[in-house]
Amino acid sequence: MTEVVSLSVPCRTVFGWSYTGIMSRSAQRIVMKFGGTSVGDLDRIRAVAARVKKQVEAGCEVAVVVSAMAGETNRLVGFCQSLSPLHDPAEYDAVVATGEQVTSGLLAIALQNLGVKARSWQGWQVPVETDDAHSKARIARIDGAKLGLCMTEGVVPVIAGFQGVGPDGRIATLGRGGSDTSAVAVAAAVKADRCDIYTDVDGIYTTDPRITSKARKIDRISYEEMLELASVGAKVLQTRSVELAMKEKVRVQVLSSFADDSPVDDSCLPGSLVVDEDEIVEQELVSGIAYSRDEAKISVRRIPDCPGIAAAIFGPLSDANINVDMIVQSTGEDGMTNMTFTTGKGDLERTIAIMEAARPTIQYGQLMTDSDVVKISVVGIGMRSHAGIASTMFKTLADRAINVQVISTSEIKVSVLIGAEYAELAIRALHTAYGLDAA
Amino acid sequence: MTEVVSLSVPCRTVFGWSYTGIMSRSAQRIVMKFGGTSVGDLDRIRAVAARVKKQVEAGCEVAVVVSAMAGETNRLVGFCQSLSPLHDPAEYDAVVATGEQVTSGLLAIALQNLGVKARSWQGWQVPVETDDAHSKARIARIDGAKLGLCMTEGVVPVIAGFQGVGPDGRIATLGRGGSDTSAVAVAAAVKADRCDIYTDVDGIYTTDPRITSKARKIDRISYEEMLELASVGAKVLQTRSVELAMKEKVRVQVLSSFADDSPVDDSCLPGSLVVDEDEIVEQELVSGIAYSRDEAKISVRRIPDCPGIAAAIFGPLSDANINVDMIVQSTGEDGMTNMTFTTGKGDLERTIAIMEAARPTIQYGQLMTDSDVVKISVVGIGMRSHAGIASTMFKTLADRAINVQVISTSEIKVSVLIGAEYAELAIRALHTAYGLDAA
Repeated sequence: MTEVVSLSVPCRTVFGWSYTGIMSRSAQRIVMKFGGTSVGDLDRIRAVAARVKKQVEAGCEVAVVVSAMAGETNRLVGFCQSLSPLHDPAEYDAVVATGEQVTSGLLAIALQNLGVKARSWQGWQVPVETDDAHSKARIARIDGAKLGLCMTEGVVPVIAGFQGVGPDGRIATLGRGGSDTSAVAVAAAVKADRCDIYTDVDGIYTTDPRITSKARKIDRISYEEMLELASVGAKVLQTRSVELAMKEKVRVQVLSSFADDSPVDDSCLPGSLVVDEDEIVEQELVSGIAYSRDEAKISVRRIPDCPGIAAAIFGPLSDANINVDMIVQSTGEDGMTNMTFTTGKGDLERTIAIMEAARPTIQYGQLMTDSDVVKISVVGIGMRSHAGIASTMFKTLADRAINVQVISTSEIKVSVLIGAEYAELAIRALHTAYGLDAA
Repeated sequence: MTEVVSLSVPCRTVFGWSYTGIMSRSAQRIVMKFGGTSVGDLDRIRAVAARVKKQVEAGCEVAVVVSAMAGETNRLVGFCQSLSPLHDPAEYDAVVATGEQVTSGLLAIALQNLGVKARSWQGWQVPVETDDAHSKARIARIDGAKLGLCMTEGVVPVIAGFQGVGPDGRIATLGRGGSDTSAVAVAAAVKADRCDIYTDVDGIYTTDPRITSKARKIDRISYEEMLELASVGAKVLQTRSVELAMKEKVRVQVLSSFADDSPVDDSCLPGSLVVDEDEIVEQELVSGIAYSRDEAKISVRRIPDCPGIAAAIFGPLSDANINVDMIVQSTGEDGMTNMTFTTGKGDLERTIAIMEAARPTIQYGQLMTDSDVVKISVVGIGMRSHAGIASTMFKTLADRAINVQVISTSEIKVSVLIGAEYAELAIRALHTAYGLDAA
């Protein structure tokens, strides 16, 4: 849309492998996104400006997406909440969006002060068009024309993240962490070669480094794996931004804004690159071990085993907008069956109430719940073509005498529900068993 | 433009005198403007909401214009200045305008919390169109259609003051104190019956109350007098807002946001009303005594008295954008003349440099300067029809042995330049002499 094709410069292979993206533009086009801690005070904003300048001097066309200065969003949300716990989300948006607006102007000033041409762009100026769900809006469309023109004119656009303009012409924010999504959407709109997400960690890890010091940084990971590793990556990259990147084929790099290792050459990126699986040459069987403590187990026992019983149980939960994750049905003797499933811990009370209300219909014998559980997931696109991933998991857990309560699988993931007290033990054992430990 | 004419309601005389403004709309339409200290924290924002609610419940159609919370603008300006003393004014605008944006959203929330329908409006949403002079823009045009519709639908628009959108589609701010001008411009656009400026003083005084405790609050004052009293009223009302009010015939009331005396009935307003002189029934001869310490006196002595000498002196000053205020020419013996004039203290150095550069052309004998002076002005539209105002002034000063150095007069003002050390003595004496002292 805004791509500038420079015919006088021979097309070059930008990357050393089979990437077939945009190569007809002479300059590499990069979107750099900086989170709240990265722009937490004026010194850090100056440091960000220096980092952007480095990329500009290396010949890249750069657009920047910024979050609010650390603490600012909380301050503004606090104002809204103390005035009214049930505040109008459209007004909340008007208040809270100012955090990113301030950062965008300040970073533009800091860049200009270093001799880099720059200007701030608010969501409504781009425009970043959203739906009408104030305070948790989704981006409907970004017109990349003005931003693209800005970049080809050698001016760095500094875009206020986390916000756009709704169909009502008012400011709409994307929900917490939405600046990642803004950055990916901007990258798609200006057809960027890469979207670099600068944050306070230096990449995506094979598992939570707080659980095992042997966790390794992942160099390249597929969109699908990144989505499945959400529980590991949740604080690193907003799930919606990964979904959008996958849909729009935006290559996303997660890297630290505190290390002085901005990538200039695409062949040796310092962070973790989230890409299409075609770009990953050497596939690992397993990419990482994720876990979630936000699980509650519900067992509906001694149900007459007749057709339609699953619908009778899960229909009312779906109507109540309760997400059910793992489901296991086991048949007992005497024609009775048991149904076990998991929901988020926050939905447990409502789930119990709904099941008790449905008891006359379902005619079950007993309802049992347990929220002292954890879900451990082994994720890897290599699973598609390799057997034995699941059995390694079960054997590893059995060797530690860890009882598996529920199992569920997807194409690239095996998940088990185990007792919460075994979480760390299981994660460490699996990390070793799949050969993920750092040397 | 957005006026709603209700033919079913008989036209009523809104005021007790010869005001011939809008009377065909059944509800009185009021713009309420709250300055930074009035919205300085959440409790004060709640108090403002309660005050607005009172007007709405009294049957008024209300629009509100807000400043940034006290201290917020300084914080944001400080950010810009520490990043770069010579920052891009367009970026400064993007940063600083957030202060008013936050207040507009918060006050809308506070109003809704009291059951008053309200919504925030940013400058670009109204839109408030400005010229392209970022950081000191002037309002070019306000389309009152959307705001008027909002008001007739019973929703209180809460407008972020101090800002608009420039011809470049970017946020433009009006310069410090610009929210007063925003309020007057909004009042003109929605054809309001009155614009109430809530501030931290309770009105406009006959002179600075810090100089004499006998200073009295003025009930009604004309636009012209208010402009001449700028030195007394500068901290109360921005000069541009008074000029705009005079041009658009907007009735402006200055009143305290801390006293619990919001006007509901227009016949007994608690603050000072700035209006067309036709609305002032009992004219005082003198309305107030103003003073300015920001004066410097320059005397160019022993100039050959020939045609074109004034142009030779003031041409270069005008070219350098230096404002010259009082001018006196006196002819000596021997065909030589002296020219004495005043400028702002901040322009004195540049004025001296320009005069020295022009010496070969003007061929004057001597340049003398004095910045230890004060300008005292007696202001009153009654002067137009009454003689003796100036002579009372000279006699009063002479009785105190105060030497008058320069005199200048306008239709409604007599100003004298005197030694700075006599300022308070002169003001107190004149205040008494013109019968302005409080009982």
